[in-house]
Amino acid sequence: MFSDDQLTQNAFLGGRLTLFQPRDGYRAGVDPVLLASVVPARAGQSVLELGCGAGAAILSLLTRVAGMQGHGVELQPDYADLARRNAALNELPLDVTCADLSTLPNALRQQRFHHVIANPPYYRSGAHSQARDMGRSVALGGDTPLATWVEVAARRLLPKGYLHIIQRTDRLPELITACEGRLGALEVLPLTARPGRAPDLVILRARKEGKSPFRLHAPQILHQGDRHTADVESYVAEIRSVLRDGAALKWPDAR
Amino acid sequence: MFSDDQLTQNAFLGGRLTLFQPRDGYRAGVDPVLLASVVPARAGQSVLELGCGAGAAILSLLTRVAGMQGHGVELQPDYADLARRNAALNELPLDVTCADLSTLPNALRQQRFHHVIANPPYYRSGAHSQARDMGRSVALGGDTPLATWVEVAARRLLPKGYLHIIQRTDRLPELITACEGRLGALEVLPLTARPGRAPDLVILRARKEGKSPFRLHAPQILHQGDRHTADVESYVAEIRSVLRDGAALKWPDAR
Repeated sequence: MFSDDQLTQNAFLGGRLTLFQPRDGYRAGVDPVLLASVVPARAGQSVLELGCGAGAAILSLLTRVAGMQGHGVELQPDYADLARRNAALNELPLDVTCADLSTLPNALRQQRFHHVIANPPYYRSGAHSQARDMGRSVALGGDTPLATWVEVAARRLLPKGYLHIIQRTDRLPELITACEGRLGALEVLPLTARPGRAPDLVILRARKEGKSPFRLHAPQILHQGDRHTADVESYVAEIRSVLRDGAALKWPDAR
Repeated sequence: MFSDDQLTQNAFLGGRLTLFQPRDGYRAGVDPVLLASVVPARAGQSVLELGCGAGAAILSLLTRVAGMQGHGVELQPDYADLARRNAALNELPLDVTCADLSTLPNALRQQRFHHVIANPPYYRSGAHSQARDMGRSVALGGDTPLATWVEVAARRLLPKGYLHIIQRTDRLPELITACEGRLGALEVLPLTARPGRAPDLVILRARKEGKSPFRLHAPQILHQGDRHTADVESYVAEIRSVLRDGAALKWPDAR
């Protein structure tokens, strides 16, 4: 378990959410917040996050949409504990189960959710440069195949429930293949740093029992202008609104 | 076989290529020309087109890159005949085999090519509205699964050879799944009518024995401006250059 001097306290969503995070471990960036921002959830619905870490994604969602019930699964006990602590700090309704997602406890295997979200490790285990500590290493490069994340998500979804998963673009084929026969109505939202660049990340939306054809959307541009400046406020308006005001990011269909 | 009064003669690539096409059958648009424009071919290389129709794609490529040798496979005898006639008319080196691509004749199964290109039917058989004639119907909605197109292409490619295939975006998952274990280094170029729109078409590039990670590129915008005008010259400069001057379309990597 992390001691207090190993933690920092950080403001998310313009101060609407405060998270303890390990000073030297895995620290959430904008990706979990973007993931949470596209989930079309409403009061009374439930959400499961696979690999919730300290809770940045699911707590962002629970902050934006009042009246939901959240459940996080986290492999690493100290991160699971941190997620519980962060939920309490922000008075948000989150249960956390410390488990390997491929061997979920029975109680959880009897539950189904309206939404599943996941921000799986971006690198295959061993493929990324040595992380400073083990917790960060597991968070950055897990051992669990992406296909397992999708399989477990599909089993835990209610009929017509949504999976949203954020991942590096180069692993999109693995995700798409894993959905086959399990989830339908796939949609891909590419996330592009600047106009004309290749998207580094994608958010995949898939639906249990979904039948609609696959859709690839126009990229969501994150930053204004053609090149990087030191200006931290370079985000385009709708992304700034997600990060600063805790707004939803409108999914392209709804635009 | 088509009689002369069933045919029209049309200029492609700003008049560099002239094609007989059936007045009431399947008529090539810009898609086969775009497909041909991205193939990184050079003199001395060979190209196979699966489902070549009257030859618009492969003859565009043979026009742009002198010194190649082309081979087309076409299921429908009258279109195969038209492709031969179009090759002769333009003095381009194209052999045409009339065959179902899933049962290629022995002679062809002993050949390997530097490039394979294909513009498979955009609709599953029966899924599109009734076409005016049978030839157009087969060209628009074939019976051959996309997976077969990819399998046959993979078998006919030389090591490090390229497949380029243009297809509706909603069938991208089928294409990606079909490549698994057969072709690698997949790259997807989305083709978008106008900025901010979802891409209707994609060009998939895949490589025999390719190992590079999957890449999704920024969309290639086809038309200037945000909405449709009657101006037929609304293509962006690089697309106009492909269609009018027979130029190559630079693949994003090379930009």
